[in-house]
Amino acid sequence: MKKKYSIILGNLGNTCDRFCGGYKENPSTTQMLEKASKIKDIEGIELVGTWDISPQNKDDMRKALSDLNLKCVSIIPDLFTDKVYSRGSLSSINPDIRQKAIDYTKRMSDIAIEMNCEVINIWPGQDGYDYMLCADYEKERNLLCEAISEIANQYPDLKFALEYKPKEPRTHSYLARMADTLLLANSTDCLNVGVTIDTGHGFVGGEVIAESIVLAKASGGRLFHMHFNDNFSSWDDDMIVGSVHTVCYIEMLYWLEKCDYQGWLSMDQYPYREDAVGAVSESIEWLKKLQEIVDHNKNKIDELIKMQDPVESSRFMRSLIV
Amino acid sequence: MKKKYSIILGNLGNTCDRFCGGYKENPSTTQMLEKASKIKDIEGIELVGTWDISPQNKDDMRKALSDLNLKCVSIIPDLFTDKVYSRGSLSSINPDIRQKAIDYTKRMSDIAIEMNCEVINIWPGQDGYDYMLCADYEKERNLLCEAISEIANQYPDLKFALEYKPKEPRTHSYLARMADTLLLANSTDCLNVGVTIDTGHGFVGGEVIAESIVLAKASGGRLFHMHFNDNFSSWDDDMIVGSVHTVCYIEMLYWLEKCDYQGWLSMDQYPYREDAVGAVSESIEWLKKLQEIVDHNKNKIDELIKMQDPVESSRFMRSLIV
Amino acid sequence: MKKKYSIILGNLGNTCDRFCGGYKENPSTTQMLEKASKIKDIEGIELVGTWDISPQNKDDMRKALSDLNLKCVSIIPDLFTDKVYSRGSLSSINPDIRQKAIDYTKRMSDIAIEMNCEVINIWPGQDGYDYMLCADYEKERNLLCEAISEIANQYPDLKFALEYKPKEPRTHSYLARMADTLLLANSTDCLNVGVTIDTGHGFVGGEVIAESIVLAKASGGRLFHMHFNDNFSSWDDDMIVGSVHTVCYIEMLYWLEKCDYQGWLSMDQYPYREDAVGAVSESIEWLKKLQEIVDHNKNKIDELIKMQDPVESSRFMRSLIV
Amino acid sequence: MKKKYSIILGNLGNTCDRFCGGYKENPSTTQMLEKASKIKDIEGIELVGTWDISPQNKDDMRKALSDLNLKCVSIIPDLFTDKVYSRGSLSSINPDIRQKAIDYTKRMSDIAIEMNCEVINIWPGQDGYDYMLCADYEKERNLLCEAISEIANQYPDLKFALEYKPKEPRTHSYLARMADTLLLANSTDCLNVGVTIDTGHGFVGGEVIAESIVLAKASGGRLFHMHFNDNFSSWDDDMIVGSVHTVCYIEMLYWLEKCDYQGWLSMDQYPYREDAVGAVSESIEWLKKLQEIVDHNKNKIDELIKMQDPVESSRFMRSLIV
Repeated sequence: MKKKYSIILGNLGNTCDRFCGGYKENPSTTQMLEKASKIKDIEGIELVGTWDISPQNKDDMRKALSDLNLKCVSIIPDLFTDKVYSRGSLSSINPDIRQKAIDYTKRMSDIAIEMNCEVINIWPGQDGYDYMLCADYEKERNLLCEAISEIANQYPDLKFALEYKPKEPRTHSYLARMADTLLLANSTDCLNVGVTIDTGHGFVGGEVIAESIVLAKASGGRLFHMHFNDNFSSWDDDMIVGSVHTVCYIEMLYWLEKCDYQGWLSMDQYPYREDAVGAVSESIEWLKKLQEIVDHNKNKIDELIKMQDPVESSRFMRSLIV
Repeated sequence: MKKKYSIILGNLGNTCDRFCGGYKENPSTTQMLEKASKIKDIEGIELVGTWDISPQNKDDMRKALSDLNLKCVSIIPDLFTDKVYSRGSLSSINPDIRQKAIDYTKRMSDIAIEMNCEVINIWPGQDGYDYMLCADYEKERNLLCEAISEIANQYPDLKFALEYKPKEPRTHSYLARMADTLLLANSTDCLNVGVTIDTGHGFVGGEVIAESIVLAKASGGRLFHMHFNDNFSSWDDDMIVGSVHTVCYIEMLYWLEKCDYQGWLSMDQYPYREDAVGAVSESIEWLKKLQEIVDHNKNKIDELIKMQDPVESSRFMRSLIV
Repeated sequence: MKKKYSIILGNLGNTCDRFCGGYKENPSTTQMLEKASKIKDIEGIELVGTWDISPQNKDDMRKALSDLNLKCVSIIPDLFTDKVYSRGSLSSINPDIRQKAIDYTKRMSDIAIEMNCEVINIWPGQDGYDYMLCADYEKERNLLCEAISEIANQYPDLKFALEYKPKEPRTHSYLARMADTLLLANSTDCLNVGVTIDTGHGFVGGEVIAESIVLAKASGGRLFHMHFNDNFSSWDDDMIVGSVHTVCYIEMLYWLEKCDYQGWLSMDQYPYREDAVGAVSESIEWLKKLQEIVDHNKNKIDELIKMQDPVESSRFMRSLIV
Repeated sequence: MKKKYSIILGNLGNTCDRFCGGYKENPSTTQMLEKASKIKDIEGIELVGTWDISPQNKDDMRKALSDLNLKCVSIIPDLFTDKVYSRGSLSSINPDIRQKAIDYTKRMSDIAIEMNCEVINIWPGQDGYDYMLCADYEKERNLLCEAISEIANQYPDLKFALEYKPKEPRTHSYLARMADTLLLANSTDCLNVGVTIDTGHGFVGGEVIAESIVLAKASGGRLFHMHFNDNFSSWDDDMIVGSVHTVCYIEMLYWLEKCDYQGWLSMDQYPYREDAVGAVSESIEWLKKLQEIVDHNKNKIDELIKMQDPVESSRFMRSLIV
């Protein structure tokens, strides 16, 4: 099956960290869209709520995307940059803040429908805790579950993809890894609540992503979306795909296929100091090449997985090097 | 509520690693039992199948425990020392090996009933994988689930507590963390399938154990057993409780209480070079002291958890130091 | 010996991360100084170059500190927030950028002398690399060493304390851990080049800080400065001292004493969401309490270290809990 | 330059861990030598003291190696399997044990000379500590340094290569990473004291091995030996080269060349469940292929390192995939 590649628009914007306020210049949304449209093989765009898409600009954005022949793949409500959410958004023990987060996510869901966008990618980055003896894990997880249920029930035609991440900006996130996110998704009893795998988040969580893909399938087909990047496994470095890991991307593309993943392969990088278009393009080129390997070696890999012989698997991997 | 402390008998035996075949002498089972009975506050014993307990010695063992006024708290089927299981036991893709593991676990379950022991602690240490592209994650997880279901259904009066661990002896275990173990336990549809938390395994998995306790409760009260030890968070060092971490034990004892945990607090150490009785005794003394803190400060901690203020929580923790 | 406690002024300022531009309000320097002066037991201040101290405000700052009875403990040249240094400052392969960094550090050294400040704390946060096959480790380390030598030789009355950190903002820093920083310090052949231990940076680097203190002593007494904070060991969370680790702070205070450390104990936190004065105060209170323990148990700890018996050491640690 | 590949003989023997006493059968030394001689491109053998080589069998071993046209590349004194060394060998605070370790290492040095072997590979695996407040870091490091100096001074024609490793079997090793090992080697003032890089140990230590190679060069050319294997970065899994990492092997082979490394490329694996000959052969085949890439792209990589552009480096790496 032909793969669909997309990008989070903000990947093409400025970058910063807690030390340096900006490593690049601030481009306009229009400039970013233009850049995106020129990246080979990109057919879809993910938009961050408020920053990229809002009730005010939605019509313009729809037209702009249409003009560039790009599909709106997901909307990512911004539940993480506003300091009102600094101690939690959808799981906040403050009912006003939680309500605000719910209402805002619903507004973004309305826009998604208008944009013909099927996925709301929820990354509740501020929902977690920093210190021990400072959070009611039980209550807050329940609040998070209830909030997501409420939204998902109201928008049965949208898919709500929960993006997990072990830490940052909190020292611990409530949605930390695939398995605990599935437990929460299962608890909602909503079939339209599922998961986004960000490959880097999985690496930080110590996951073999291929196995996480299998877990999501086993919970009723809850893998809704994929974000791609690479890192050194201890932090969300948001690097070019293939710059550290190689083998595990091959394995995960194989299992995406085997588990019949139908969604987008989206790039989610943060090229602090690199040329953004170059960095994103590289990731797509890596994925295309690795996908080709998987496509051409489907039977071979099937066989390797049956053999369970690391020597044979090594021999195969080695054969892929020039 | 008064806490019940126990120990895995083998903690008092010889120790080895892949380099050194034995750091101590090999004591007899009788010698280990005698030692155990002299450790203050220990009322229960966990027995490893085949090594400590077998069809041959079960009557003698029952009498020995009774004479020492010790309860058999759990039986741990040995699915990890026999090389026949080196590539998997209950999840093995080899039907003969899997059957052997199932039959053996059932024999241990029969013995458990005779011993008036309520818990079978299953640690499927060899069930996992070492290399990528060498395992059928989907099939093997399903086989593991089926095997456990079959056993649990046959012994409805026993509790089957699955002990998770991220790695060792395999580079990756199928039961790696609380959440994925709960997903599997939930899939069995057996209410008598639950989880054992080994605190050290949780640390290696990057867990805040208190939150894992909450997850188990949320899956229908599936926390069946607790193994205590400490480590430096990157490997299962099996050290004395409190030698590295302190705050998180307080937090986990608090949440055990809050989640109404009724099971045993069992010591699972591996005192490579230390006096075993001394090392185990220390862990119990730490837990007793920390439990006392939790008991005396229940309301204070309730309040801290509501306040969500790290400064206040720090002040409290600091007040516990002489 | 009475301990001298200090704080980095910016700890009392606003906080941000790459997602949220500001969790608090921006206080003025004067406001921060006032806050600092009210924290119990703080006698010294560290100033970040450009932000807190510059050729323009140095006279005012000197007076302000004097009025508040605070000593300027160190100046930290800002080699990390200006994007001109985004690919390296003192190690930059671009001679202009490197020269700029050298000149700037010298200007800060001039100010230090005027401020009667003895330590320049150099944290070359941007000096490192992000990707493999993208840096000339040999050349850049040499450039870094030469730059520091040049500066240190020109200011023989100042101490240059190199602050190491494994990562952030680069995925890899050139000065990553104590031992490699000592290798570089030794290479400068300048006795006034030494090291700053940031306890959290050490934890992230997998160090037992007490051993790092010993290493610095063995390289000719090169431990010049201490920054205190805590974290969960995988990232520089910059938390309150004692919120995760306890035992190792006791051990490090003991070894600071034993190695005759004469410098300041400075707080370096980043209280993202916490009350800054409260968070910093807590750290000092923890250190004071733990220092008291070390002072009162000097002989006992001497003895434990001779005994090499973890059971005895555990017993001691346990005795410190209420 | 043609590369010289070797193997540690014990790689072809039985394997065990703390749970399973043996995953394979115990082959005789003769059987292992025969196997080794059949592995393509292996020209050298490393022998573990006592197990493979002793005063009793040295003449037979010399003849056996000669008959098989194999060179004795190093002798690895066994300072780690005998429980007498369980709390330290060359750094032991017990003078009798330390003397025993020194004497034994000298006996192995005598044999090395007779075997025309140039390298004594010292892995002081038991020299470290497990718990905090249980070791005199200063004294023990000094004892270790003195012991090594004494031996190295007595055998000026041998090279003593110190193999570092962050942990296992102790929770902390004294020789943990490249930089601290260099500090100790530098302290001996012996030019024949250097370092062995075990690639897996470096990964566990969070090292970019290429940079470690540069550090060793900068300390006067102290890289004496290389052990190759791979792992998942958190533990010494001793896997086939290339099964997890790829890019960093290319980088390290490039820097070995650039730093003019003249020693052997030796395989040090522990194929728990794999066919040993197959697993070792795979590692050599990987290294040969990656070496070819480095040889053919020397100028290209020189250029990439000057460019410091991750996009270009990614493009290059990608071009190496079929």
